[in-house]
Amino acid sequence: MKNLAIGIDLGGTNLKGIIMDANGSGRHLTRIPTDAAKGGAVVLENILKLIGILIEKEGGSGSILGVGFGSPGFVDANGIIIGGAENLPGWKGTRVSEAIRSRFGLVSTGANDVTVAALAESKFGAGRGVKNMVCLALGTGIGGGIVIDGRVYKGTHGMAGEFGHIVVETGGVQCNCGLKGCVEQYASATGIVNLARRYARTFRGKSGLAKLIKAGGTPVTSKTVYDHVKKQDPLALKVHETACEMLGRACGFICNALSPDRIVLGGGVMKAGQVIVDEVKRRFSRYCWEAIAQRTDVVAAECGEDAGVLGAAALVFEEVTV
Amino acid sequence: MKNLAIGIDLGGTNLKGIIMDANGSGRHLTRIPTDAAKGGAVVLENILKLIGILIEKEGGSGSILGVGFGSPGFVDANGIIIGGAENLPGWKGTRVSEAIRSRFGLVSTGANDVTVAALAESKFGAGRGVKNMVCLALGTGIGGGIVIDGRVYKGTHGMAGEFGHIVVETGGVQCNCGLKGCVEQYASATGIVNLARRYARTFRGKSGLAKLIKAGGTPVTSKTVYDHVKKQDPLALKVHETACEMLGRACGFICNALSPDRIVLGGGVMKAGQVIVDEVKRRFSRYCWEAIAQRTDVVAAECGEDAGVLGAAALVFEEVTV
Repeated sequence: MKNLAIGIDLGGTNLKGIIMDANGSGRHLTRIPTDAAKGGAVVLENILKLIGILIEKEGGSGSILGVGFGSPGFVDANGIIIGGAENLPGWKGTRVSEAIRSRFGLVSTGANDVTVAALAESKFGAGRGVKNMVCLALGTGIGGGIVIDGRVYKGTHGMAGEFGHIVVETGGVQCNCGLKGCVEQYASATGIVNLARRYARTFRGKSGLAKLIKAGGTPVTSKTVYDHVKKQDPLALKVHETACEMLGRACGFICNALSPDRIVLGGGVMKAGQVIVDEVKRRFSRYCWEAIAQRTDVVAAECGEDAGVLGAAALVFEEVTV
Repeated sequence: MKNLAIGIDLGGTNLKGIIMDANGSGRHLTRIPTDAAKGGAVVLENILKLIGILIEKEGGSGSILGVGFGSPGFVDANGIIIGGAENLPGWKGTRVSEAIRSRFGLVSTGANDVTVAALAESKFGAGRGVKNMVCLALGTGIGGGIVIDGRVYKGTHGMAGEFGHIVVETGGVQCNCGLKGCVEQYASATGIVNLARRYARTFRGKSGLAKLIKAGGTPVTSKTVYDHVKKQDPLALKVHETACEMLGRACGFICNALSPDRIVLGGGVMKAGQVIVDEVKRRFSRYCWEAIAQRTDVVAAECGEDAGVLGAAALVFEEVTV
């Protein structure tokens, strides 16, 4: 019986793989380096190697229904990377599903990494029990995923959910995408650190964070900022408020557009936890219809770092039929 | 055989009703006054009266699968108006589906008026043949509708698609919703006229439109503005460019969020036609990923003023099973 799926999560540093059943029980969780700098062909070969390792650990591919993968950028209906993965040189154009099928004879399907994470949250995490859900992953950038009527929504070409580029401040901070004022310039890990550095330059109050930044030498991350938020550092609080204000605006727009039951906040920045959820909750309802805000909950993600790999495997049960 | 549906479109001035088959062939198109000012109870009674007229014209309700209705505001899964219809006093709270069932023994389902119009465009109009589509109705305000995988997406509580309140200019024109800079303040009929009046105050060039506005006496509508666009009136062109710039921003945000195959522009303002489509097309791709813009077409609606009533009937075939 083909009742298992392989899930592959493609990160900038590591590839993660798992074998999972339809209820979300996984085994053989395995991690190998992505070797992103070596180019797309090597990354693809590493993915195939990881699938081989998982099949070996399982003792064969007889029970495997298919392989799901999550990747940065846009993945089309044929499992081809058609753009958007700027941090992976030579990855665009890679025919991932075709390579998997040709090597292992297994059906394969793929989606954007945050889209599969959203599916994991919907099936096994903070989105359980609701029909319509949006996930925002606050990482180096901000990615998004959409679940509609319990099913992942990828858009016809696998490009939906680019919520990181909602403009929340007209003429605001310049974004890599060419626009100004995208929410990821304020509330991603990178955005938060840049805000802190910018505010520190002119900050007049007493702040350990400002001192740290001005002294230089110590690497400042979004965790550094949120460690100082815990200590009520005034500069850190100012950064936190701006980040959550901008995130609140983005969530308001998302609410007006999609009226989701839940907005799930995940990604590395969310290690700071409930303090971000609380502040966004306090702010987002100003930016959408009250009736919609009343029916939308903002919550923290629950699947943690395995959301991607679990969601990639779950995609197989969504999309592959025996 | 129950192979027909009744569609009811609730407008501020008129109620429209039709009997339609699943292919979109309609008959008995009937219009009666809404009597909106007389309050929700009278409006409901008028809807029931209209349904009665249609059944009488059809010679009985034996072939009627159900009644679909489109209404301003938010319509929940039980056919109750749960908010958002500010121009219909006493309409909020009305249990429309229950009243129809109790009077005629017919199943009924409802949705926001632009949502049903989007369904009509998807089935019979400018959205034919594509899976994912968004509709923007440029009327007194701006309403929106979403079709995902060929099915109407209403959100869990019937509140999705409030695209009129996408903020396209931080700190911009004050909107009735409480926000500033909502796209409907620039590109709805009301928004366009207000822009023209504002620009006319300080306009220095030679403009027939400016003269008309300054003279007073003649009512100025969005049609007046677009009649002057045709004549290359410089003030009218300035208004047109601003309206389309703001609409382009909103379309860009919608593209990044949903990556629809098509954005369909409809509503009264679109009587001006292709000139708006062309200008929005020229602008929207600046506000989303290029790869997404390349795969999204902006087009004019095709169903005209009957989109609402056709879509309301189509909703029955979507949602009511025998």
